[in-house]
Amino acid sequence: MLNVKLFQMQKFLTEPYEEALAPALKEAQVKLQTASGLGGDFTGWVHLPRDYDKEEFARIKAAAAKIQGNSKALVVIGIGGSYLGARGVIDCLCSPNYNLKKKNTPNVYFMGNGLSADAMKEVMDLLDGQDFSINVISKSGTTTEPAVAFRFFRAELEKRYGKTGAKERIFATTDKARGALKSLADAEGWETFVVPDNVGGRYSVLTAVGLLPVAVAGVDVDALMGGAAKMMEVCEKQADFSCPSWQYAATRFALYKAGYPIEVLACYDPAFRFMLEWWKQLYGESEGKDGKGLFPASVEFTADLHSMGQYMQSGTRNIFETVVRLGASENQLYVPKDEEDGDGLNFLAGESMDYIRDRAMEGTLLAHYEGGVPNLIIEADGKTADALGQLIYFFEYACGLSGYLLEVNPFDQPGVEAYKKNMFALLGKPGYEDRKAELEAKLK
Amino acid sequence: MLNVKLFQMQKFLTEPYEEALAPALKEAQVKLQTASGLGGDFTGWVHLPRDYDKEEFARIKAAAAKIQGNSKALVVIGIGGSYLGARGVIDCLCSPNYNLKKKNTPNVYFMGNGLSADAMKEVMDLLDGQDFSINVISKSGTTTEPAVAFRFFRAELEKRYGKTGAKERIFATTDKARGALKSLADAEGWETFVVPDNVGGRYSVLTAVGLLPVAVAGVDVDALMGGAAKMMEVCEKQADFSCPSWQYAATRFALYKAGYPIEVLACYDPAFRFMLEWWKQLYGESEGKDGKGLFPASVEFTADLHSMGQYMQSGTRNIFETVVRLGASENQLYVPKDEEDGDGLNFLAGESMDYIRDRAMEGTLLAHYEGGVPNLIIEADGKTADALGQLIYFFEYACGLSGYLLEVNPFDQPGVEAYKKNMFALLGKPGYEDRKAELEAKLK
Repeated sequence: MLNVKLFQMQKFLTEPYEEALAPALKEAQVKLQTASGLGGDFTGWVHLPRDYDKEEFARIKAAAAKIQGNSKALVVIGIGGSYLGARGVIDCLCSPNYNLKKKNTPNVYFMGNGLSADAMKEVMDLLDGQDFSINVISKSGTTTEPAVAFRFFRAELEKRYGKTGAKERIFATTDKARGALKSLADAEGWETFVVPDNVGGRYSVLTAVGLLPVAVAGVDVDALMGGAAKMMEVCEKQADFSCPSWQYAATRFALYKAGYPIEVLACYDPAFRFMLEWWKQLYGESEGKDGKGLFPASVEFTADLHSMGQYMQSGTRNIFETVVRLGASENQLYVPKDEEDGDGLNFLAGESMDYIRDRAMEGTLLAHYEGGVPNLIIEADGKTADALGQLIYFFEYACGLSGYLLEVNPFDQPGVEAYKKNMFALLGKPGYEDRKAELEAKLK
Repeated sequence: MLNVKLFQMQKFLTEPYEEALAPALKEAQVKLQTASGLGGDFTGWVHLPRDYDKEEFARIKAAAAKIQGNSKALVVIGIGGSYLGARGVIDCLCSPNYNLKKKNTPNVYFMGNGLSADAMKEVMDLLDGQDFSINVISKSGTTTEPAVAFRFFRAELEKRYGKTGAKERIFATTDKARGALKSLADAEGWETFVVPDNVGGRYSVLTAVGLLPVAVAGVDVDALMGGAAKMMEVCEKQADFSCPSWQYAATRFALYKAGYPIEVLACYDPAFRFMLEWWKQLYGESEGKDGKGLFPASVEFTADLHSMGQYMQSGTRNIFETVVRLGASENQLYVPKDEEDGDGLNFLAGESMDYIRDRAMEGTLLAHYEGGVPNLIIEADGKTADALGQLIYFFEYACGLSGYLLEVNPFDQPGVEAYKKNMFALLGKPGYEDRKAELEAKLK
C-alpha cells in the first residue's frame, strides 16, 4: 500500500506537531466522514469508491468500448477539474506520448481548456480523415472555453455524420437534471453521464468526468477504483497518524506554519507531469483562499534537477519538497557496456535505469536535506492503475483534512469567478453592460 | 519591438524604486557589456547575436538540411540548458504537438533529460522502421543522463547503419577542443558544433546547442538570431529605463524586496509551456543561490485559471505575476453561431478566438490586480521567430542584470553538483567509494 515517509523532519520541525494537531485532525476526520464541515455538501467523493453508481460505471465501460470500436480519436472537451485528472491518468498509465504511440485504442485530444485558435486548428487538422467522437464535460454547459470548443467540434461532427450519426458520437458528462448541456443532450438524444452534485470538479476524476476518457485510452478503471477503495478504507478506519493522509496533511501544515510557504511536488517520471498539474489544482484551489495556503509548485526530475535544482539546493529557504516515488518502471533497460568508456560510465554497465534513478533519488534527498529543504516521500504502490487509484484518493483525503486544518472551506472556489465576470463584461455579455465601460476605463 | 508594461504598480511599490536602483543597474550594465562582473567569463551570450560564428551557423543550416533529407526523426540528447531552449522554441513556433502533426520535417525526440526507462523504450519503439539521426549535446560528454541515453541510441544507430553509416548521422555539440565527447567525435569522425566556453548552458539556446534542433524542425534561425540582435542593440544602447530589460529587472527586484518571494510567469498560449520551463531554469539557476532569489513558477492560461486561478486570486499574498502576451495567433477561428443558443454564447458568434482570449487577459489582469497581485506585462512582437528571438535575448539580459542587483553570480550553478556527488557515491563510481558507506548510513 501507499506509504508516507518523513526524512529527518525533526531538524525542521522541532516541536511535536503531531500531538498538537491530533485534535484538529480528529475533528476534520469526522467532518469529512459525516459531511458536517464547511462545504460538507461537496464531500460526495469521500465514499465514492464504494458508493459509486454501478449501473453508470457499466455504461461508461460500454461507451468506451463503443468509442474504441467506431473512432480513431476522442475529443475530450473540458477545463480545470474536467480536464486535468483524465489527462494526468492517461499520461501516467498510458504515456505522455500516448497519442504518438502505436496502439489499438483511439487518440485522446483534450480541448476546450484554453482559448488558443492555433491549438484548436491543429486538432481539427489531425482529425482530418479520422473517425472521431466527442466527450463534452461541463456541469453547466455554459463555461466559456469548453462551450466555445464544443460549438466547433460539434459542428464538424454533424457536418461529417449528420445529426443522426453525430448522436452516436457525442457523450455529455454533465448535471444529472439541470443546465444547458443536460437540456441540449436530452433534446438531441446524446448519451449522458453524471457530474454528481456533491463532488466538485477537482475531486471528480473518479466519477464519469475522468473515467470515460481514461477508459477509452484503455486504462483499467476497475483497478483504478479498486485502488481508491483500498485507500478509502484506510482513511476511514485509521483515524490516527498510521493513516498516510494524516501524516501528509499534518506535516505540510506544520511546515507552512514554520515558515515554508511553498510546497514543491516532485516525481522522477516524466509520465507524471500532468498528475502534478492535477495536484496543483487540487491543493491550490482547495487551500488558496482568505489570504492563506501553501503555494503548490512542481518539478519533474531528473530533468529539473538541471534547471530548478540550483534554486532548490541553495536559493531562498522557503520551500519544502514532497517526492512521489512510483516504483518500478514498466520497462527495464540496462546500460550497455562501451569498450572505449570515453564517458567513464562503464561502472554502470549492466545496471538498470531504475537502479540509477533510485540512487539519484536518494542522492538528491540527502543533498536537498543538507541544503535546508525538508523532504516528505510518498511511496506509491507501483506505477499501475491500482496504485494510482490509491494515490488519487490519498491526495484528495489529505486535501480535505488540510483545508480544515487551515480553517478554510476546501470545497469551494469563489475566486475563480472574478476573472470570468470581468471577461464577460469586457466581451459585452448581456447583463454585464454596466461594468464594461467601468472596466475599460481602468485598463487605460 | 518587445515592450514591458507595469499595471498600476504604484499600489504595490509606493517608493520610487527606479531612481533608487538606477546606479546599481548602470553598474550591472557595464559589467555585462564589458564582462567585468562576477562570472564575467560566461557573458559570451551578450554580444553573441552579432559576433556568432558565421561559418558554423552555415554548417548548422547545412547539417539541418542533411538531417531533413535522410531522416524521419532526430533524437536530441541533452539535459538542462542543452534541452529546454530547443524544446521551448520548437513547441512555441512549430507546435507543442509538433511530432504529431503532418509535416515535411523530421520528428524531434528529446532524450537524455531524465532516467525513465519507459520514456526511453517508448522513443525506441517510435523509431522502429524510421530513419533517424542523433544530435548529442554535452559540454563534457560525461553528464550521466545524456551519456547513458547516448549509449543506447548510438548502439541502435550503429546496429542499423554500421559505424560508417552512423558517422553521417551523429552530430555532436560539445566543447571546441576538450572533453570526452569531443575526443570521441574526433576519433569517430562525427561532425561537431561548439558549446562556447563563455556561454553557460541556460544562456546557450542561440548557439549550436539550440540552433541545430530548431533548424531541423524548420524554424527560421536567421529570423530568430535577427530578433535577438535587435534586442541586443536596444540593451546595449539604452542604458536606462527605456530598455525593457531594465524595467523588468528593476521591478521584479523591487517586488522581491517588498515581500513577494514568488514570480509566476503566465502565458495565454499552450505552445509556450516549455518556454516557461526554459525561463524557470534561466532565472531559478541564475538567482537561486546564497539563500536568495525569487521562486520561479509558471502557469498556462486560461487552462490554469481553472486550477491555480483561485490561489492567485485570493491565496497567500506572496506572488506577483508576469504575463507574456504573444499577440495574434497564426490561425484565426471565429465562434460559430448556434440557433438554439443553449450555452448562451451567441453574443460571441462571429468573434475570433483571439478577441475572446484578449478580453480574458484583460479581465484577469484587473481581477488579479484587485485581488492583490502585482502585474507586469511583456508584450512580445508577435508569435514569430523574430519575436521569440527578441524575447529570449530580453529575458537573458534582464536575468544578468537581476543577478547583479541581487549581488550573486548569475552565471554559475554550484548547487547542481550536490546531488550528482551523492548519486555518484551511491552508485559506487570509482573515486567516490569513501562516501558511499557514509551516505548509506544517513539514508537508514
